[in-house]
Amino acid sequence: MSVPEKFDAIGVIDYDKWLEPKHFQHTPQELRDNDVDIEVEACGICGSDIHGANGDWGRPYAPLAVGHEIVGKVARVGPKVTKFRVGDRVGVGAQCDSCGDCVRCQNDNENYCREEVETYLSFYKETNTPTQGGYANYVRVSSNFTFKIPDGLSSIDAAPLLCGGMTGFSPLLEAGVSKGTKVGVCGIGGIGHMTILFAKALGAEVTAISRNDKKKSLAKELGAEHYIATDEEGFDEGLTELDVIVNTTSSFSEGSFKQLLNLIKPHGRMIYITAPPNDETLEIDPGILLSSAVSIGGSHIGSPKDIEYMLDFAAKHKIKPYIETIDISEENVATAWKRMTDGDVRFRFVLTGYDKYFKK
Amino acid sequence: MSVPEKFDAIGVIDYDKWLEPKHFQHTPQELRDNDVDIEVEACGICGSDIHGANGDWGRPYAPLAVGHEIVGKVARVGPKVTKFRVGDRVGVGAQCDSCGDCVRCQNDNENYCREEVETYLSFYKETNTPTQGGYANYVRVSSNFTFKIPDGLSSIDAAPLLCGGMTGFSPLLEAGVSKGTKVGVCGIGGIGHMTILFAKALGAEVTAISRNDKKKSLAKELGAEHYIATDEEGFDEGLTELDVIVNTTSSFSEGSFKQLLNLIKPHGRMIYITAPPNDETLEIDPGILLSSAVSIGGSHIGSPKDIEYMLDFAAKHKIKPYIETIDISEENVATAWKRMTDGDVRFRFVLTGYDKYFKK
Repeated sequence: MSVPEKFDAIGVIDYDKWLEPKHFQHTPQELRDNDVDIEVEACGICGSDIHGANGDWGRPYAPLAVGHEIVGKVARVGPKVTKFRVGDRVGVGAQCDSCGDCVRCQNDNENYCREEVETYLSFYKETNTPTQGGYANYVRVSSNFTFKIPDGLSSIDAAPLLCGGMTGFSPLLEAGVSKGTKVGVCGIGGIGHMTILFAKALGAEVTAISRNDKKKSLAKELGAEHYIATDEEGFDEGLTELDVIVNTTSSFSEGSFKQLLNLIKPHGRMIYITAPPNDETLEIDPGILLSSAVSIGGSHIGSPKDIEYMLDFAAKHKIKPYIETIDISEENVATAWKRMTDGDVRFRFVLTGYDKYFKK
Repeated sequence: MSVPEKFDAIGVIDYDKWLEPKHFQHTPQELRDNDVDIEVEACGICGSDIHGANGDWGRPYAPLAVGHEIVGKVARVGPKVTKFRVGDRVGVGAQCDSCGDCVRCQNDNENYCREEVETYLSFYKETNTPTQGGYANYVRVSSNFTFKIPDGLSSIDAAPLLCGGMTGFSPLLEAGVSKGTKVGVCGIGGIGHMTILFAKALGAEVTAISRNDKKKSLAKELGAEHYIATDEEGFDEGLTELDVIVNTTSSFSEGSFKQLLNLIKPHGRMIYITAPPNDETLEIDPGILLSSAVSIGGSHIGSPKDIEYMLDFAAKHKIKPYIETIDISEENVATAWKRMTDGDVRFRFVLTGYDKYFKK
């Protein structure tokens, strides 16, 4: 395979018209010793793609190709890459580089490196080149953030795991979830439904938490033993005593934050995993922190070590996200974004048909 | 010893004149089967006493005797008390009762019981009698929240441990602090200095954190290896990577909250242990929770099991709080409160001279 000098992509040309994504070309920064070029074959559409495209997280550059749940085949490797060969099936998540030198990078916390480079909406440090995501025929990323996809996982199932799946799995690992742990999953959407699947595979007793009871049967189907609708008065009055709630709602103002804390047992945790718009803050009544002994924390994707573990775990436990595939095109990306904004997907879009669009 | 029907106390008669405490008498609720009467001989002056007396936490009743670091001798026991005998030297902290039946009470989390009764500023459930603290000749409390003082601890050293000491020790236990754990203690005052002593006894590497460098030599004397003054620009720029910060400052608006989070390593915690005034809230920028993976939590005193462990640990490790004794009287209580408000004590007042005042 010969890799072109310019990559083809679909993305936001004008943030004010973000729902009208267009084809564009961009020149990636020069291939570094440890980089790989990946010919994309599938890419999940993450909630972050919406926040990125609509300007919620700023407008650092345009055109912008989002997409950070990328699966494809290695098309070229830098001279120092020993981990991969051309043709390997690999994936990339939301992070494509880090400094490599700091105490965090040296201790499996690359995802918290202060010089983290994200797969889109970020800049490569050396050249200040904007990063471009996986709504494209090729991506060029550090091999340190590229992962072999186990044979047991199809590309379309693996794609959403690379960001969304990992994002929900991380807090479960951090909280040491195992057989019998009482896990709450708040928000039954793209990430939430994968979090339930992972929690069940770890042996947890799962409580699905949603605003109303519309997702009750889906939650049961996913394996949740219990269901709480936060619009039911007094839902927090008993001692539910969850060990941890993974809060996947994409806005801090959504959901009854204070009441959710009441569902957690002393020394338990509420972990947020998605960043709401830049202008939202979480106002915490100080007394609650003391009287409940609940910690409120955040978690950001996963380290390379975690992602490798997650992919193996998913293959072993046959984690199968609920997806809807849609062929990549300007029109279909717009449709998918619009439907996601309306909550009209069960539960994750995965872009396919890359050959058809980019090789036409 | 015969216990009087009315107890003598010093406390707030009028919240608007809280710095003019007066002598008053009150009738405790009837002795229950599991209660003990304690003749007080020493009582630490906790920061909570100030918040309670000045109305920061509401004005539920007056007169109000504060004081919840109480040491004295058992003067009478209810018919079902088997744990203590008259004459035993015992202590009481900030909690004097709980429901006893809930899942929390049954699992060593009595301090998070939703029907917790506090030693003052609270009401006994059965009779709605206001609770009165240890600025008094006697207190009547549940024996479940009364603890033997080990022989190795003097009464004046034990007193401040019962609330302040336990309050700082709890987050260390929760965070699993042991040899080499990197512990930050923010605020070097009554609770903060005891937290440093406990952290050192557990083998931690301690960083004392204060607004300026005035307490630097004191912090070293207490055993802290490192010192951070938050008024120094850029104090948070490096990767300090603390495992946990115990935040003992009594106001959320004090201290550079956001910057303090930067001192903590991924998956570490900031634990608040004192409740600020009712009207203060903590505003959290959501991105920080995700990008740092730091949890923000609270901790409230300790369970009876924890308090027993803490007292034994303190005796074994010869934890000796820095105290200044002051004989109880209307005038001296006022002076002590005034000086505490001004930060003029190294580091904890302990009221003594009970016999002299109450038996004159």
